[in-house]
Amino acid sequence: MQAITYPDTVERWGVLEIRIHAVPSGNPFTDCRLSGLFTEGGVTRTAEGFYDGGDTFVIRYMPEEEGRLHFGLEGGPVFADLLPLEGTCLVTPPSGNNHGPVRVRGTRHFSYADGTPYLPFGTTCYAWVHQPEELQRETLRTLRDAPFNKIRFCIFPKHYDYNYAEPLTYPYEGTPCSTEGLDRSTMQRFTEEKAGSHWDFTRFNPAHFARIEKRIADLAALGIEADLILFHPYDRWGFDGMGTEYDDLYVRYCISRFAAYRNVWWSLANEYDYIRTKTVDDWERIAGIICRDDPYGHLRSIHNGPAFYDFHKQWPTHLSLQGTDRYRSVERTEELLAEYGRPLMWDEVLYEGNIDLGWGNITGEEMTRRFWEGVLRGGYAGHGETLLDACDEHVDEAVLWWSHGGHLKGESPARIAFLKKILEEVPGQALRALPGYWDVIAAVPEAEPDSGYTLFYFTYLRPLFRDFHLDADRRFEVDVIDTWEMRIEHRGIFGGDFRIPLGGRPYMAIRLRPVDR
Amino acid sequence: MQAITYPDTVERWGVLEIRIHAVPSGNPFTDCRLSGLFTEGGVTRTAEGFYDGGDTFVIRYMPEEEGRLHFGLEGGPVFADLLPLEGTCLVTPPSGNNHGPVRVRGTRHFSYADGTPYLPFGTTCYAWVHQPEELQRETLRTLRDAPFNKIRFCIFPKHYDYNYAEPLTYPYEGTPCSTEGLDRSTMQRFTEEKAGSHWDFTRFNPAHFARIEKRIADLAALGIEADLILFHPYDRWGFDGMGTEYDDLYVRYCISRFAAYRNVWWSLANEYDYIRTKTVDDWERIAGIICRDDPYGHLRSIHNGPAFYDFHKQWPTHLSLQGTDRYRSVERTEELLAEYGRPLMWDEVLYEGNIDLGWGNITGEEMTRRFWEGVLRGGYAGHGETLLDACDEHVDEAVLWWSHGGHLKGESPARIAFLKKILEEVPGQALRALPGYWDVIAAVPEAEPDSGYTLFYFTYLRPLFRDFHLDADRRFEVDVIDTWEMRIEHRGIFGGDFRIPLGGRPYMAIRLRPVDR
Repeated sequence: MQAITYPDTVERWGVLEIRIHAVPSGNPFTDCRLSGLFTEGGVTRTAEGFYDGGDTFVIRYMPEEEGRLHFGLEGGPVFADLLPLEGTCLVTPPSGNNHGPVRVRGTRHFSYADGTPYLPFGTTCYAWVHQPEELQRETLRTLRDAPFNKIRFCIFPKHYDYNYAEPLTYPYEGTPCSTEGLDRSTMQRFTEEKAGSHWDFTRFNPAHFARIEKRIADLAALGIEADLILFHPYDRWGFDGMGTEYDDLYVRYCISRFAAYRNVWWSLANEYDYIRTKTVDDWERIAGIICRDDPYGHLRSIHNGPAFYDFHKQWPTHLSLQGTDRYRSVERTEELLAEYGRPLMWDEVLYEGNIDLGWGNITGEEMTRRFWEGVLRGGYAGHGETLLDACDEHVDEAVLWWSHGGHLKGESPARIAFLKKILEEVPGQALRALPGYWDVIAAVPEAEPDSGYTLFYFTYLRPLFRDFHLDADRRFEVDVIDTWEMRIEHRGIFGGDFRIPLGGRPYMAIRLRPVDR
Repeated sequence: MQAITYPDTVERWGVLEIRIHAVPSGNPFTDCRLSGLFTEGGVTRTAEGFYDGGDTFVIRYMPEEEGRLHFGLEGGPVFADLLPLEGTCLVTPPSGNNHGPVRVRGTRHFSYADGTPYLPFGTTCYAWVHQPEELQRETLRTLRDAPFNKIRFCIFPKHYDYNYAEPLTYPYEGTPCSTEGLDRSTMQRFTEEKAGSHWDFTRFNPAHFARIEKRIADLAALGIEADLILFHPYDRWGFDGMGTEYDDLYVRYCISRFAAYRNVWWSLANEYDYIRTKTVDDWERIAGIICRDDPYGHLRSIHNGPAFYDFHKQWPTHLSLQGTDRYRSVERTEELLAEYGRPLMWDEVLYEGNIDLGWGNITGEEMTRRFWEGVLRGGYAGHGETLLDACDEHVDEAVLWWSHGGHLKGESPARIAFLKKILEEVPGQALRALPGYWDVIAAVPEAEPDSGYTLFYFTYLRPLFRDFHLDADRRFEVDVIDTWEMRIEHRGIFGGDFRIPLGGRPYMAIRLRPVDR
C-alpha cells in the first residue's frame, strides 16, 4: 500500500518533509527515482528524494519565502499509484533563533538569510556523532553554554590516533575490517588494513544518516552551524577511496538528506591533500554536483593539509584553511583576503591541548591570540581542544573535544566568548585591518572605516604604554582591554596627544570609540 | 725633535703599538703618510699609521705568529729624520683569555684563531661608549658577569628615541647643531636639524677614537668581541651623509686605529637601508676598503632594516640579520643557511622590554625562545633589552641597556647563560638542525651528526609527553630540560620505544646522549 504524508505548514527555513511509503524494488537507493519541483515567490527549485529504509522514501525541502509553497512530485514506477502529485504547504514566519541559512556578506563576512550578521566562532569535534549517545548528549549540553556557533564534523567515521573505536553505525551495509593487530600509527592509516572491509557502496545505512540528521537539527536548535565534512583521510574502511561512481552517489545522497537543514555547510574534505586517491579533478567534479544539486546554495569550501586548495576556483564560497607553516596562519589573513576576495575561516589554528602532536598542544593564551589576530585582521578562526587530563598508560582512550566532543577543559573558550561579545558590539559587526601599522593590529568597522572607532591589538608584544597623536578636535572614549583576564577598563575621554598605560603585559587591546559625532 | 718608541715584546694577537713623535705639517690626518710592512712566518702584511693629535703618530700591528716579527716603516717628509726604519719585536705566546681573533669555522660556525670554538652570544648597547664614564664602567661590570661574548655598538653618536643627549665626545673637529626646538620624533631624524652642524670631516677628534679603543681593549680583557658599527641612520649631525671622500677617509682611519685589536668585527652599518644617502655601490666600495686595508681579515657584515643585504656578495663573512616580518626571524635560519652558505647571526630578534615600539617589548620567555630556536637551527641570536622601570613622565631619559648599557633587568640573560652552557657541552660545540621534524626542532652536533646525540626543542608547544621509537639495541641518557626554569632532569637510560613525560609546559627540551658507544 502506498501513502504520502506531509504537513500543512512549515516555517520559513524549516524542513518540509514529505514521506512516501511504497514497496521498494531492485536497489531502492539507486533504482527508485523520486524528485520534486518547489515553487515559491516565483522561483522554482528541484529537490531529490531518498530512500530511508523499510518502505519509506523521503523528499525534503527548505522553503525560503513566507506564503504558499507549491510543489509537484514525480518518481519511478514504484511510486506509480501516487505520483505524479501536486500539493501546497503554507510557509509561516521563522520562529525562535531561526534566521535562515548563512550567506556570504560582501566579500569578507557572513550574515544569515534574514540579514542578521553571522560572526563565525567555530569549533571542531570531528567524530562526535560517531560516539556513544550519552557522550553526544554531553557534547550538546557543552555547546549550549559555549561561545561556538559552528562545528566541524565528519559524516564518515574516523580512524586516527585516539580514534580507534568502532563508530556507532556505519554509512553502508557491509562488514568492517577486523581491528585485531591493527597498526595504530597515524601515518599507516591509508594502507592495507582497509582491505579487510567489505561494503556495498550502493546501499547506504539510513540509520547512520538519520542519526546525523538528528544532530544537525539539535545544532540548529542551539543556533549552531553544521560544517559537514564529506570526505577525510582518517580511514580504515575504504570510505576515502570508493571511486568516482560511489563518491558521487554518496554526495548526492548527502545532499538529498541534509541540504534542507538550514544550518548545513558543505566541507568537501578535511585535509583534502592527504586523500591520495582523489585528484583536483575529483574535487571539482564533487563541487559541481553540490553546486548543481543543492537547491539552496549552502556555503561550500574544502580544508587543506600541507597545501591550500586553489581558492581562485569559482565554487568555494569562502576559504577554509589551516596554516601551512608553523609560525603563521591567522597572521597571513589580510594577504589572503586580498588575494582571494572571499571570506576567510582559519578552521584550524592548532588546538589548545597537550598531546604529543604539534598541532594539538598550544596554550590557551596562544589559541586566544590566534582568535584575536584572525578576527581583527578581517577573518575568522576556529577552535579545537586536545587536552589530556594526565600522562598515563591510557591516553589512547582519552576523550578529546577535538574529535569526541564531551566537555571543555581549556582556558580559551571563555576568552573566545569575551572576544565574540566585543565583536558583536562593533558597528556593523565586521572588522577590517588598517594597513600601515607594523607593531599593532588596528581594526576598524567595515561599515564605517573612517568613523574613528578602532580596536588596537598588541598580540604577544607588551608595551608599558601607547602614545596616540590624534586630531585635537575629536574626542574618543578609550577602553583598555585585557584579552586574557577578560577585563575592560574605561579610561575616559581623550583627544589629540595622549598616553594610555597598558601595564607591560601581553595580549592587551585598546578600543577607541568616537564620542563627538 | 722626532722620536720613535715601541716595545721589545708583544704577545701573539696583542697590539704592537709604535709611537712616533714628529712635528705635524699641513693637515696631519691627510697629509702625513705613515705605513709599515710587517713580516712574520714568511707572511708580509701592510698596516697604515694614523695621527693621534699633538705631535703623536701611531702605527699598530697585531702579530699572528709567535717568534721574531720584522717590520719596516716609511712615511712622508715630516718623518724624514726617522724613516725609513727597520725593527723587530719578539712575539710571545698569548696570555689569559687571548685566543686570537674570531674566524669562520666551516660554513656555519665560528672559532678563535687558536682553534677554540667561539659560540657567539651577542648583545647590543648601541651608544654605550658615548655615555658618561661612570655608566660605561657600570656596563663593563655588568658584562663581566653576563653571558655575552659579543657586543654591537656605534662609533658615531646616536640620535633616536631615548637618545637625545649629546655624546661625551664628537668624532670630528667642529660644532654640533643646537638641540633647541629639536623634533624628537624618530622618523624626522634624517632631515633639517643636521644642517646646523659644522664639522671638518678631514680632521678627526683623536680623543673620541682613543676612548673607543680603550673600551675595545676593556672588552677584549673580558673575552668579548666588539662588533663595531661604522655607519648608522640615527643621526642629527650629518655623519650618515658625509659623502664618498669623507666616508672613505673615516673608514680608513677606523681601520688604522682599530684593526690591530683582535676582538674587532666590522659591521658596515646598522639598518643600512635606512641610510638614504648611500647606495649598494657605496657599501660595496666601503667593503672593498676594509677587505684591502684590514691586514687581519676581521669578520665583516652589514645589518639590515626592512630588507636583507645581498649576502651572495663575496665580502660578508657572515649574515648579520634582523627579521623582516613580525612572526619569523630565527625561524627562517635553516632556509637562509642553505641559501647563503655562511654563518648566520640574528643580531636583532626584537628586544626584551616594554617600550612603546614593537621591536622593543617582547617578554623574557619570547627572547629566550628565539635564542633556543636560533641556536638549535644552526645559527646564533643576539640579545637586547629595552625595559623601562615604570610608565612615568620621564621615560625619555630612561637608561636602556639596548643603547646606553648600565645594568640588566630582564629575565632572559640568565636563560641565555643556561643555553650557552648546554651548547658548550655539545660535542664540537656546534649544532645543525635535522630536516624532517615538523613540530619540534631536532639538533645534532655538526661534528658527529649520526652519533645519536640530539637536542629536541619544543618551542611554544607544550606536549604532556613525547614518545620515541629508536633502535632497540642502542641506549641513550635522556635529560629533560626546562629552558625557562633552567632545570635539567636526568631521566635515566632508555632505548627502543619509550615515553618521556614533559609536564605540558612550553619551552621544554629533551637531550639524548648515546651511552652505548
